Amino acid sequence: MKKQTLFSVAICLITSNIFSQTVILNNTGTPEIQLPDIPGYLTMKCDFHVHTVFSDGVVWPTVRVDEALAEGLDAIAITEHVEWHRVEVIDDNRISYEIARDRAEGSDLVIIPGGEISASPDHFNALFLEDPNDRKLKDTIPARRIAAANAHGGFVFWNHPGWTAKYKNGNTPVTEEFKNLLRDESVQGIEVCNGNGYWEGALKLALEYDLALLGNSDIHGVSYNRFEPGKHRTVTLVFAKEKSAEGIRDALLDKRTAIYQGDHLIGPVEFLKPLFFESLELEATYREGTTIAYVSITNNSDINFYCGNRSPFLFYNSTHFFTIKAHSTTILGVKVNKNLPEFELDLVIHNLVVAPGESLELSLPVIMD
Amino acid sequence: MKKQTLFSVAICLITSNIFSQTVILNNTGTPEIQLPDIPGYLTMKCDFHVHTVFSDGVVWPTVRVDEALAEGLDAIAITEHVEWHRVEVIDDNRISYEIARDRAEGSDLVIIPGGEISASPDHFNALFLEDPNDRKLKDTIPARRIAAANAHGGFVFWNHPGWTAKYKNGNTPVTEEFKNLLRDESVQGIEVCNGNGYWEGALKLALEYDLALLGNSDIHGVSYNRFEPGKHRTVTLVFAKEKSAEGIRDALLDKRTAIYQGDHLIGPVEFLKPLFFESLELEATYREGTTIAYVSITNNSDINFYCGNRSPFLFYNSTHFFTIKAHSTTILGVKVNKNLPEFELDLVIHNLVVAPGESLELSLPVIMD
Amino acid sequence: MKKQTLFSVAICLITSNIFSQTVILNNTGTPEIQLPDIPGYLTMKCDFHVHTVFSDGVVWPTVRVDEALAEGLDAIAITEHVEWHRVEVIDDNRISYEIARDRAEGSDLVIIPGGEISASPDHFNALFLEDPNDRKLKDTIPARRIAAANAHGGFVFWNHPGWTAKYKNGNTPVTEEFKNLLRDESVQGIEVCNGNGYWEGALKLALEYDLALLGNSDIHGVSYNRFEPGKHRTVTLVFAKEKSAEGIRDALLDKRTAIYQGDHLIGPVEFLKPLFFESLELEATYREGTTIAYVSITNNSDINFYCGNRSPFLFYNSTHFFTIKAHSTTILGVKVNKNLPEFELDLVIHNLVVAPGESLELSLPVIMD
Amino acid sequence: MKKQTLFSVAICLITSNIFSQTVILNNTGTPEIQLPDIPGYLTMKCDFHVHTVFSDGVVWPTVRVDEALAEGLDAIAITEHVEWHRVEVIDDNRISYEIARDRAEGSDLVIIPGGEISASPDHFNALFLEDPNDRKLKDTIPARRIAAANAHGGFVFWNHPGWTAKYKNGNTPVTEEFKNLLRDESVQGIEVCNGNGYWEGALKLALEYDLALLGNSDIHGVSYNRFEPGKHRTVTLVFAKEKSAEGIRDALLDKRTAIYQGDHLIGPVEFLKPLFFESLELEATYREGTTIAYVSITNNSDINFYCGNRSPFLFYNSTHFFTIKAHSTTILGVKVNKNLPEFELDLVIHNLVVAPGESLELSLPVIMD
Repeated sequence: MKKQTLFSVAICLITSNIFSQTVILNNTGTPEIQLPDIPGYLTMKCDFHVHTVFSDGVVWPTVRVDEALAEGLDAIAITEHVEWHRVEVIDDNRISYEIARDRAEGSDLVIIPGGEISASPDHFNALFLEDPNDRKLKDTIPARRIAAANAHGGFVFWNHPGWTAKYKNGNTPVTEEFKNLLRDESVQGIEVCNGNGYWEGALKLALEYDLALLGNSDIHGVSYNRFEPGKHRTVTLVFAKEKSAEGIRDALLDKRTAIYQGDHLIGPVEFLKPLFFESLELEATYREGTTIAYVSITNNSDINFYCGNRSPFLFYNSTHFFTIKAHSTTILGVKVNKNLPEFELDLVIHNLVVAPGESLELSLPVIMD
Repeated sequence: MKKQTLFSVAICLITSNIFSQTVILNNTGTPEIQLPDIPGYLTMKCDFHVHTVFSDGVVWPTVRVDEALAEGLDAIAITEHVEWHRVEVIDDNRISYEIARDRAEGSDLVIIPGGEISASPDHFNALFLEDPNDRKLKDTIPARRIAAANAHGGFVFWNHPGWTAKYKNGNTPVTEEFKNLLRDESVQGIEVCNGNGYWEGALKLALEYDLALLGNSDIHGVSYNRFEPGKHRTVTLVFAKEKSAEGIRDALLDKRTAIYQGDHLIGPVEFLKPLFFESLELEATYREGTTIAYVSITNNSDINFYCGNRSPFLFYNSTHFFTIKAHSTTILGVKVNKNLPEFELDLVIHNLVVAPGESLELSLPVIMD
Repeated sequence: MKKQTLFSVAICLITSNIFSQTVILNNTGTPEIQLPDIPGYLTMKCDFHVHTVFSDGVVWPTVRVDEALAEGLDAIAITEHVEWHRVEVIDDNRISYEIARDRAEGSDLVIIPGGEISASPDHFNALFLEDPNDRKLKDTIPARRIAAANAHGGFVFWNHPGWTAKYKNGNTPVTEEFKNLLRDESVQGIEVCNGNGYWEGALKLALEYDLALLGNSDIHGVSYNRFEPGKHRTVTLVFAKEKSAEGIRDALLDKRTAIYQGDHLIGPVEFLKPLFFESLELEATYREGTTIAYVSITNNSDINFYCGNRSPFLFYNSTHFFTIKAHSTTILGVKVNKNLPEFELDLVIHNLVVAPGESLELSLPVIMD
Repeated sequence: MKKQTLFSVAICLITSNIFSQTVILNNTGTPEIQLPDIPGYLTMKCDFHVHTVFSDGVVWPTVRVDEALAEGLDAIAITEHVEWHRVEVIDDNRISYEIARDRAEGSDLVIIPGGEISASPDHFNALFLEDPNDRKLKDTIPARRIAAANAHGGFVFWNHPGWTAKYKNGNTPVTEEFKNLLRDESVQGIEVCNGNGYWEGALKLALEYDLALLGNSDIHGVSYNRFEPGKHRTVTLVFAKEKSAEGIRDALLDKRTAIYQGDHLIGPVEFLKPLFFESLELEATYREGTTIAYVSITNNSDINFYCGNRSPFLFYNSTHFFTIKAHSTTILGVKVNKNLPEFELDLVIHNLVVAPGESLELSLPVIMD
């Protein structure tokens, strides 16, 4: 058995470049990004903003699928600019989605049809477009483009709100007209993170207008993320009831999302808190003859949790600022005053952001063996 | 010239093991630990607690010198147990200091004579002992041992106060008698950090009794620190007026110390603040046509500064929790409301600890180009 | 000055993905592949076989330029299949060359127009095509396609002669008709190496028919070579009088080439020998009072030279099989019988291949200091 | 269960430096050096030449045990200089052996008592000394020292024969008197390798006088081998019938040894050939419809085998010089002329050295699936 596999790989390597050197690197569905599911929901790692040669990207749609599989994503949306394409390439906004969908066949990567709409003064992504070739999406009046996307039953979000070019000379895209789009739910989400970009103002706006939080790559070039140790693509975490396009749509409309960018999680307390708890395994015992509780915290996730202790207890082997490292076991010595059967550690998790300037606070219950 | 060096190295490598394979790896004085000096003082990296075969360590004193040079230390104290030695080894507490001192000759590593005194219920290190063979250091009455060390004009500090064995069954070494030693300055310092150990209670005690803060390795085995990327020995930072034993003694008596353990600095505001500022180079400019200040912060030190933003300004490309990485340039986009010629970033530096539960807070002045 | 650069980079990173995330990673011309020039010639690292979306590749031509610059190549030929293109992409064989050429502007990367011709029973690359859209290149009679390429004054070589599919059921493409193409110089070169493929039979044929040796990537997918430490693309080394398309054409016609694949060089003695010598710096001195010559060999190239000693001298610190490591200094102790002012080391360099089963042999002159 | 282990480790880490920071890193007997056993014999990795503070080394004997276990050795001999010790250390040649033996208790590391005898003009190691304190080992007449060691029933070998100091001014230790020691088997082995040193002349002598081949570290300093990726200590491979001191003694007297230094094995054909074969797993199949045999060679050992093909077959995907990499699978395409059910690959394994200037040659049988 193993023998046959071996040879088929070997022969494949030797002959593959006659036809194509692009191979699906990881079609087993193994999540390369290790984050736990949370009670009631699957945690899906999604990138809802990618380009290919069919707008201003530089790769064939198959590459986007291969990259997504290699990076352990659960879903991508193909979001070409609907108003623009290269002259050397066919004018058909649906084709890149179809090529990607065919490439993903046999894997469990979800491909979502979408498009990017340049509705002055800014850009918007529309997901689940029934027909990305619909001419109304290119209407001469920008606001009608968003209306057209809404008519498709799609989910529309504001792209890269921190794009500085728009803010030059005192301008702001957040006009009264713009706010109306948010108020009437024509626009239902916002990219707080776009690639490496992050805008605290966008998070403020999201909370003010109750928008779904999104973090996407907006990738145009080749993705080399997986070759940089510890690096990952900026993704939207979608808390879905099922791993499907429909599951994602429901979650987006219900605003069940958070963002994973760098070593940060950004999102509502209701999702970040279970993500933190589900990442951990705890064990605790008293040091013999003492009231020092040794608390062993195993973190099975990819995230280093940067913590501050706000409990009344002094630590025996750590300062109040400590890190629960990814894929490691951290042992805290906690000096409690008598041998309590259980107690709580009040913590702030600095890199879990719930609002501008505000990190997640919680109490970690410790039950002694 | 270079040629000759090359060959002498080559030949040395080939023949060295006839006599000794231990070579001084780094006698150029290059500091392997990169921390800046601060205004008025040199920042010396010191380990005041090491053992060799002359008490219960497992290496010859020359190895301690070679390790210290390779790890970029500025000073070590040889601190054998004064009351105990191996039967296979001569009973002379001064010899290990002398062997180390001879080995260090020609380098600028400072070797300090010292000893560890087991004065029940705990251990103390005495530095600058005139005669570590003084029989009074082994007096049958423990308190007299410390008195003997004081009589030498030495500097005495409490070792590993977090050693759990002492706290069993409700005991504490911090008796009234013990407090008197602190009050009358018989004991002038305390190891808040010993190896990987850290005790918040010790820091509390240090502040209460105005003790010098110490962090040492207490190494008995071989030091492999330099082979683990990013790792360094726990050291006492001494802010000295000159690089000498005398400069160190003055600084210790004057309590000009801090501790560098893992990714933490522990010490008084007056030393941590300049360490932070001297580690950084700033440049700042407004993004053309906008009120977004791009602040470039270059960190030339080995320490990652884990920061929290407490300014009224929103960040353009970062959450309020961000890291100024070691030996890197971090660029912050700060949204100020109008083009101020200068402003201040109010920050908390989480991993710079000034008291139990308390991190360094400061204002970073930004002057625009 | 430096400041300005810093900020322009920073701003570029933050805003670039609005337009394109593909940036030229290395346009300084720094050769990432470190091989020396040889007396009279520049050593150019060339890949004469690459595909883009304009035939069956998966990237836009700009990506090929960025990859080539990042990998330190001096020249690439864009060689789309002339008979075939994707239906979604314009039918114009010249466009991918033009896009690549424009992308390379300002760098010193040479872009060569070419095409791949599927002239049954095999494939051929034609470089320097005047018009890759010439319909004669798609003639229904395969032999006429090669004739058409020859008419362009191009350089034609046989691609991936080791492609096993062709050899099935006892077939061979090396028919009498085929041999005539080699004899009459319609086909002037041969890919002994294609990607990771290598065919000893091709080298045999090359020597028999006096063909230029070529080693190319035939890349269709994304190039990730630079992310795998120690890996490089298979390239044709062209020994040119000037760094230009013309210089390359002259060298190819004159068969001044070798191949660099993995840790092997494959080529004629007249090029491999100077490549070896120019990679090295030697110094030598007698160990005082002995007849042992310490020969220090510094290898400034990327290649590990795997050597066998065939001299009458015994080695003092090495077996007869030894490695002159890339970017390292190797010191050999050679036991000569009396203090000769100079001598020769007879060596075989196993990984420098001059014919099937035959490695480069040479004498390395050692002059004592 | 796991829980308890976890805590005992944690607590150990926190408290260990009170007593000793030296912990046995690897007492499971897992061989860190991966070399196969050969038919009829265990392959034991042994270092028969180490020093501690009890002669001119710089570590306590326990460190030698810890290092050996961490590096995956099966046996070490403690070989202090019998005539010399440090004044600060007790004059008892047996103590370092006893300390090491006690440290190794509970592991399966074999500790052998020995000593180094400086019998002018050179040094010799004697293993299995009944009493290393025997005054006759320090006899004023050097030759009597070796005689004394022989009287112990020990195994005596010549140390570092390549030590250049001895060869100054035309001298050689290989006098007629010396040859007599070899002839009459007073000296039964020779260090062809000592640390990084290698002397082809020693190998020549070993073959001439039928001496056991030894390769040892002669370590005086700390061993940092395990921190340098791919590096290992120079060891004597002993082909023993049982893992014990007795098994080793029998093998040494029977000259069942080879040497593993760097990427080389040095030894008799009868041991190197089975080491090579036992390292490999082969599978082979014909590429469908062709006469190309794909031979998959899995190398489970730590050694990269540098091979030259001397078969009449041309390779399909490799030059004649190729590497069967350690812990990897190498696939060779071999062009046989018709579909033979089996064939042989005639190879030279360059880095397996059987005599000065001579590498192992063998035929690798390939049986097709």
